Amino acid sequence: MSHTTKNKAKTLSRVRRIKGQVEAIERALEGDSECEDILQLVASCRGALNGLMAELIEGHLKFHVLVEGQKTLPSQREAADELIAVVKRYFN
Amino acid sequence: MSHTTKNKAKTLSRVRRIKGQVEAIERALEGDSECEDILQLVASCRGALNGLMAELIEGHLKFHVLVEGQKTLPSQREAADELIAVVKRYFN
Amino acid sequence: MSHTTKNKAKTLSRVRRIKGQVEAIERALEGDSECEDILQLVASCRGALNGLMAELIEGHLKFHVLVEGQKTLPSQREAADELIAVVKRYFN
Amino acid sequence: MSHTTKNKAKTLSRVRRIKGQVEAIERALEGDSECEDILQLVASCRGALNGLMAELIEGHLKFHVLVEGQKTLPSQREAADELIAVVKRYFN
Repeated sequence: MSHTTKNKAKTLSRVRRIKGQVEAIERALEGDSECEDILQLVASCRGALNGLMAELIEGHLKFHVLVEGQKTLPSQREAADELIAVVKRYFN
Repeated sequence: MSHTTKNKAKTLSRVRRIKGQVEAIERALEGDSECEDILQLVASCRGALNGLMAELIEGHLKFHVLVEGQKTLPSQREAADELIAVVKRYFN
Repeated sequence: MSHTTKNKAKTLSRVRRIKGQVEAIERALEGDSECEDILQLVASCRGALNGLMAELIEGHLKFHVLVEGQKTLPSQREAADELIAVVKRYFN
Repeated sequence: MSHTTKNKAKTLSRVRRIKGQVEAIERALEGDSECEDILQLVASCRGALNGLMAELIEGHLKFHVLVEGQKTLPSQREAADELIAVVKRYFN
């Protein structure tokens, strides 16, 4: 079972929050909101998307690059955690 | 009139395309798609969001930092274009 | 006089700190440091470069897009500040 | 042996090119170059740094998360390649 299936509920609610942010941008445009407010809404949406991507990369690393049932050295888990830390730093 | 109002139709269709991309991520999760496909969908969505941000920054520069009715030197327009080129390069 | 000339000392010291960070990456590679340490050095260097870029964009906006000697409305200054806030958020 | 040691010469020459780019920014500031040229130099330097980071992440994945001497399934290698493709897309 893929990690996206395993964590489906959590990831789906994250995606739906992002959809809500995009809809907020849509409403702001329709309602002729201040351009500056729309800029901030887009910047927040991008931040949320980066967070989603970091979560997916973490899952991909832990469930598909390293796999349950395969012998995994502690150094491999440590290396995966190091990578996740750098990716999160880079994306946020 | 703000540039977001002036270019409302064009910007709205761009936002709705992004909403469609988020809904595609949602469907992919619901349908237990391959994790790799979901990663690619999110990366594309981020690219589209960056494109939207670059467009909004361009509008903000040309309509609010420089304003119609105010005497604007050619060097100011050139400086604005230079900034837009760097922002587009940085965001894409 | 360009803002980069006006703020030369400050910006130069910022660039030299970045050069020092790149030299630290160089030494880490030469000294066969842990890969994870090198990853963190590169991530920090990128953060510093983004900070430099945000500073240059701010200067470009305030000295070349808006110019001394040209009548500038308070709304234009406000719009420039709004843009700087979004750029800093996006780059950091 | 770490991948950064294994690929030391190649990675070092990449880092030295980046150092050269930072020195070019330094010279441009010292020589009161056009602000726009300095902006472009910084944008290129960031691109080179992102390329370096993507290379290091690839090495980290292939040499530390997956390790020689450990039985690795084809699906694990495929998952690592998928991650590298997304990281490269995100960083460039």
